[in-house]
Amino acid sequence: MAVIYEKVALIGLGLIASSMAHAMRQRGLAGQIVGHAKSAESRAAALELGFCDAVFATAAQAVAGADLVVLAVPVGVMAAIAAEIGPHLKPGATVTDVGSVKQAVIDMVAPHMPAGVHFIPGHPIAGTEHSGPRSGFATLFDNRWWLLTPEGADAGAVARLRALCEGMGANVEEMDAAHHDLVLAVTSHTPHLIAYTMVGVADDLRRVTDSEVIKYSAAGFRDFTRIAASDPTMWRDVFLTNKDATLEILGRFTEELFALQRAIRKGDGAHLHAYFTRTRAIRRGIIEAGQDTDAPDFGRGSGAKLGPKPGTKQGGDAA
Amino acid sequence: MAVIYEKVALIGLGLIASSMAHAMRQRGLAGQIVGHAKSAESRAAALELGFCDAVFATAAQAVAGADLVVLAVPVGVMAAIAAEIGPHLKPGATVTDVGSVKQAVIDMVAPHMPAGVHFIPGHPIAGTEHSGPRSGFATLFDNRWWLLTPEGADAGAVARLRALCEGMGANVEEMDAAHHDLVLAVTSHTPHLIAYTMVGVADDLRRVTDSEVIKYSAAGFRDFTRIAASDPTMWRDVFLTNKDATLEILGRFTEELFALQRAIRKGDGAHLHAYFTRTRAIRRGIIEAGQDTDAPDFGRGSGAKLGPKPGTKQGGDAA
Repeated sequence: MAVIYEKVALIGLGLIASSMAHAMRQRGLAGQIVGHAKSAESRAAALELGFCDAVFATAAQAVAGADLVVLAVPVGVMAAIAAEIGPHLKPGATVTDVGSVKQAVIDMVAPHMPAGVHFIPGHPIAGTEHSGPRSGFATLFDNRWWLLTPEGADAGAVARLRALCEGMGANVEEMDAAHHDLVLAVTSHTPHLIAYTMVGVADDLRRVTDSEVIKYSAAGFRDFTRIAASDPTMWRDVFLTNKDATLEILGRFTEELFALQRAIRKGDGAHLHAYFTRTRAIRRGIIEAGQDTDAPDFGRGSGAKLGPKPGTKQGGDAA
Repeated sequence: MAVIYEKVALIGLGLIASSMAHAMRQRGLAGQIVGHAKSAESRAAALELGFCDAVFATAAQAVAGADLVVLAVPVGVMAAIAAEIGPHLKPGATVTDVGSVKQAVIDMVAPHMPAGVHFIPGHPIAGTEHSGPRSGFATLFDNRWWLLTPEGADAGAVARLRALCEGMGANVEEMDAAHHDLVLAVTSHTPHLIAYTMVGVADDLRRVTDSEVIKYSAAGFRDFTRIAASDPTMWRDVFLTNKDATLEILGRFTEELFALQRAIRKGDGAHLHAYFTRTRAIRRGIIEAGQDTDAPDFGRGSGAKLGPKPGTKQGGDAA
């Protein structure tokens, strides 16, 4: 593929930024990739792994001369970063972000963008429970959706950013920021909060020892723990900045949960069976849409392949 | 390995029973395997796939002469099956079950067991979201836990059943029924109810179309849908028969959820961050215990490998 942006600056060097760099390199979409991370260790990792050509100790230095600037930091620090880089952006540059909420990012970043710079908020619906510069890989975005909320940005600049996302393997969709935030409250933010809660409850219970919760986790609980292992800072910021939509969906969730709880208490098997039958169809739709595998247990394979036997230790760190 | 039971009768021919049959065959643990299922289609599948040597239209016929009888039917029909087979059990035979709750199964089955028959309730902590005789595979139990709640059963009979479970690849643990039901309420029953609820909420929302929920499910929601695709009859019976423990854990869950909801409403980022940090450690423990994979996204791999592109149809049926 042809180079789409001559110079790309990645601000933040975590899972998403490092995966973008790997994907851009593998497919020849960027001439030069530079980066900034607050942590010296992350900057060193980016050079060691070779996904950045140069790294800088400040965001302001990193964005100098860049045709595309990607804000890949927790939503809570977007405002400070935007304020810092604003005066250093190249005229005509495009700035995008990869935050999981969009209206709050727009409120934080847009005021700091100089005239002549194209700010096009974005959100790749991709990720894993791992974080940091060493967790990225080039195929993270393959067949995933990349949402843009351009809200009146220059059409040419939007088309160029779209080409980059598609070049990295993603399917691109445009929508408005408020709708994005509601949809994601359903498909992501509320499920994460619920998973965090359930794992916290299990951790709290003293009559059920930690060891038992872990040993018997294959009964369903382990899927929740994967979600609840996601980056705490990122998720704190998501809930603080997508408050209204999350609280609305949580309200709906609680209402439904209470109805099912009452059905259990009253022994209303018909209500439970009807509810559980309805939810199967949604799973089928997700598999047909290519957004998950049909293999049992996500293709985890047999238990024997999963990891060491109890009592042994494993190297590495998922976080 | 040596044959442990000369004749095994499987009552119910779904995911668990068919996986047991495959595992017993592959490892030479049973001389002869016979089966019964209510559905003629399931009985035919068992013969076609070869995991039963013979099938019978009634459970009473199937258990005749069996050294081991495995009740692998939804908990709600255990009492009727036990009443039916009681008079036909061979003296000295062992009867076990694979139900997800134990006290209710004991209450339903034990009264029908004749003197001289060893009833040893059991629960393999293994499964997938798929069900039926075609979903079984020989390695389902490898490195999974198989819980027995023998409550005073003959030690020799327990040791023999334990040897079978271990022969199929499982790790065996004994505990009392009430403790089992509480532990599973935490690690399985409540997580399933929550997943069903969240998927139901998503299905209900009219402002967020089905299509969007499905398209953007990779953001977290899809993991819930896998759990919520599990067999509705089995899960209805679980909640009806493990009512007290499930309601207790649900109460704890709701309490925690409300605390997090309040933190979101009040903008208490420190509370959220501390909570989300604590839950990461549990995930690490599960991976070290060999109960899940450390691979990102359960090793689903890149989106490109997951399934067809949107708009195409996929054959087969996860259910």
